[in-house]
Amino acid sequence: MKEFKVFLREDEIPKQWYNIQADLPTPLQPPLHPGTRQPIGPQDLAPVFPMNLIEQEVNTKDRWIDIPQEVMEKLLIWRPTPLRRAYALEKVLGTPARIYYKDEGVSPPGSHKPNTAVAQAYYNKVFGIKRIATETGAGQWGSALSFACCLFGLECKVYMVRISYDQKPYRRLMMNTWGANCVPSPSKDTQAGRKILEAHPDSPGSLGIAISEAVEDAVTSKDTRYSLGSVLNHVLMHQTIIGLEAKKQLEKFGEKKVDIVTGCAGGGSNFSGLAFPFVLDKINGAKITIIPAEPTSCPTMTRAPFVYDFGDNVGMAPMVPMHSLGHSFIPAPIHAGGLRYHGMAPLVSQLINDGLLEPRAYNQLECYANAVLWARTEGFIPAPETSHAISVVVEEAKKAKEEGKQKVILLIWSGHGIMDLGGYESYFSGKLIDYPLPEEEMRKSLKDIEGWPKPKIMKMGKVVG
Amino acid sequence: MKEFKVFLREDEIPKQWYNIQADLPTPLQPPLHPGTRQPIGPQDLAPVFPMNLIEQEVNTKDRWIDIPQEVMEKLLIWRPTPLRRAYALEKVLGTPARIYYKDEGVSPPGSHKPNTAVAQAYYNKVFGIKRIATETGAGQWGSALSFACCLFGLECKVYMVRISYDQKPYRRLMMNTWGANCVPSPSKDTQAGRKILEAHPDSPGSLGIAISEAVEDAVTSKDTRYSLGSVLNHVLMHQTIIGLEAKKQLEKFGEKKVDIVTGCAGGGSNFSGLAFPFVLDKINGAKITIIPAEPTSCPTMTRAPFVYDFGDNVGMAPMVPMHSLGHSFIPAPIHAGGLRYHGMAPLVSQLINDGLLEPRAYNQLECYANAVLWARTEGFIPAPETSHAISVVVEEAKKAKEEGKQKVILLIWSGHGIMDLGGYESYFSGKLIDYPLPEEEMRKSLKDIEGWPKPKIMKMGKVVG
Repeated sequence: MKEFKVFLREDEIPKQWYNIQADLPTPLQPPLHPGTRQPIGPQDLAPVFPMNLIEQEVNTKDRWIDIPQEVMEKLLIWRPTPLRRAYALEKVLGTPARIYYKDEGVSPPGSHKPNTAVAQAYYNKVFGIKRIATETGAGQWGSALSFACCLFGLECKVYMVRISYDQKPYRRLMMNTWGANCVPSPSKDTQAGRKILEAHPDSPGSLGIAISEAVEDAVTSKDTRYSLGSVLNHVLMHQTIIGLEAKKQLEKFGEKKVDIVTGCAGGGSNFSGLAFPFVLDKINGAKITIIPAEPTSCPTMTRAPFVYDFGDNVGMAPMVPMHSLGHSFIPAPIHAGGLRYHGMAPLVSQLINDGLLEPRAYNQLECYANAVLWARTEGFIPAPETSHAISVVVEEAKKAKEEGKQKVILLIWSGHGIMDLGGYESYFSGKLIDYPLPEEEMRKSLKDIEGWPKPKIMKMGKVVG
Repeated sequence: MKEFKVFLREDEIPKQWYNIQADLPTPLQPPLHPGTRQPIGPQDLAPVFPMNLIEQEVNTKDRWIDIPQEVMEKLLIWRPTPLRRAYALEKVLGTPARIYYKDEGVSPPGSHKPNTAVAQAYYNKVFGIKRIATETGAGQWGSALSFACCLFGLECKVYMVRISYDQKPYRRLMMNTWGANCVPSPSKDTQAGRKILEAHPDSPGSLGIAISEAVEDAVTSKDTRYSLGSVLNHVLMHQTIIGLEAKKQLEKFGEKKVDIVTGCAGGGSNFSGLAFPFVLDKINGAKITIIPAEPTSCPTMTRAPFVYDFGDNVGMAPMVPMHSLGHSFIPAPIHAGGLRYHGMAPLVSQLINDGLLEPRAYNQLECYANAVLWARTEGFIPAPETSHAISVVVEEAKKAKEEGKQKVILLIWSGHGIMDLGGYESYFSGKLIDYPLPEEEMRKSLKDIEGWPKPKIMKMGKVVG
């Protein structure tokens, strides 16, 4: 009988995270203080994050970090996740490629996000923190952190962008069900929020405003810290359990090598979670094509320069070296909300410079067509973000057919789309559109950061620009 | 390390369904024609269902029915489903009981429903049927059948109760994503629908009207049949893979016996799917308490008489012997829409008469309190229907604590609640209410069926009333 999926037994789950910082061909350049623009150290971050997470953030020595038993017990609620083979999709594409997908949609909040939320909640708790504040846009991260805080008995305060709070009540209700306090941002609970409400009582909010509120809350409230769902080194590391599981599962499927590894990348966390263990293989000489996928309307990896820019939209977060469209860049309102970030994780950005990753960009309409093809063959309805990884798969599977090559393709299925069906409705009704490349917007937002400190452009440890 | 869940390998999945009709202590009494009120045979059902499914419906000889390979390949999209142990819930209840839950929420539509939808779509296809018509209330069944028809390349037409069509767009969008044609009922597509629209252009619809439309569509359209998601013998049989898997998984957990088996029951299909293999053990002498759970506001099993009544609300379906509140009974608008059916599957009804099942009823508020307790301990957010089974578990776990007994409790987690978060919102806002017992409504609706043919009341093969 054909095998459709492979589970690991719980005792086969990886016991350590992979810290790619120990293996980087080119070390990361230091973050800069957003005010002084001078390199910052761990102590500068202490008001915002607990020191045990900061230590992970800056750890360049230890390739493997033990996953604490308390974290493992929470991960086991939904992990190990299945690795599935997409037979039906292969058949309809007529491809000789073998397509495998790592399904992170099986977690209670429905995405990969709780992999790091659970770890962050644990480390905050161990550090004596009682309460975590964060922001959320459409609500994926907010719901994952609410879930994690609930499991560890921490209070959770989520500042949710006002327009999403009103338009997407289901994600907010999820957060409430897990006991979090979710408020629309701008809120009356912070100085930043009150200031905006005074000037604009009907403000729809923005991710930038929500971040300002969450960070203010964290640094001014007792026993409270802030938490981020992507971009940072420790966040990406917590996701590597995905790729480590997938490797074991591919072996159980009888695969000795993989040709193509892909995932969508907004801040970079789900992609990195799958890809980093394979990047290590590639550094060690394996022939693997590793492809992060992004939307053409927010082309951080395929079009943006490598610069120092704020991690947030408002200039409160440290400046980090990354591919960035400029922190003031506002992407078109595509449905893949998780891919609308102006920058890219420094780790992913540097690996692109090193030539180890080969990013691609896709238009929204093509992504939805592929998402519907997926739902009608494989059954599961993908999140709009995930459809970008699916688009790589479809493209590569067709190429394998043309070349007559039995390639092995692995993707991360970052989450299900059953709370985001509005995008499918737009697609079916013919209302969904592709946006032109954001040339003018990029020019403007990149102008805002002209004259700033520049990181060295380096490839495999050598300065090239 | 503690084991949180046990998967089966795909080659360990049961290869046959369990047909409890071969083992019934009391055989079912025949269905009656809704017009003549005379016993009907397989041929009478031929315009509505394909003959291969009718043969399963009336099969009282074969205990085991092979699952066709083509059905198995579709079931393997999400099966075997995990059996999880609820450690966190046990801990918070301080119970010595060991609680296991069979998670049917992992299917693409999010419930146990596709177990039979996939089988029914296959048998229709094999019989030469090109198109299936059905009705749906809140949309669980409609989405499962849409999914199944998509996998087998059949057309699917779903008549969705108008008020749900308008108020619950997400389930409809799910159906569209799988390529089904979902229309609000009453519709202009059938005579029954047009007649109602003429008299009441703004009719909110009802399940009865939607059934009428779907059955009319099936019997008047070319190569079309009708499909039901619960109640019938073959539908319940397709669900028994749940209990057969669970038995193997309990063994892998090291459990040698189970004390309590429970599930919620609306029409009876998810409950039967888990319970029937354990009913066989009980018939053979095992000491197991088997508890179907229902809402107090639709107390079919705990309050209603055993009578002949229409399977539907309008008198088109055959009259079957079952516990029924009367086909005109309209239950209070509780959120567990799947438990608002006026009758109970004949198989479940007879097993209650035989004393093999011990039904219980729960109030809505208690169920939501237990659902929230579950979400905040086990992580996954249950469907409102599932919360009734959870209420049995909480009650029995507390009892085990009082008695100091290490009981083994098994429940079916019939589906996730992330598309039904509106009920949680009502609960948290304090707006959710308990309804009084429907004494007056029951009197009225039962009066409507006074003087009808009466089934014999039998217990373990002997007439007792």
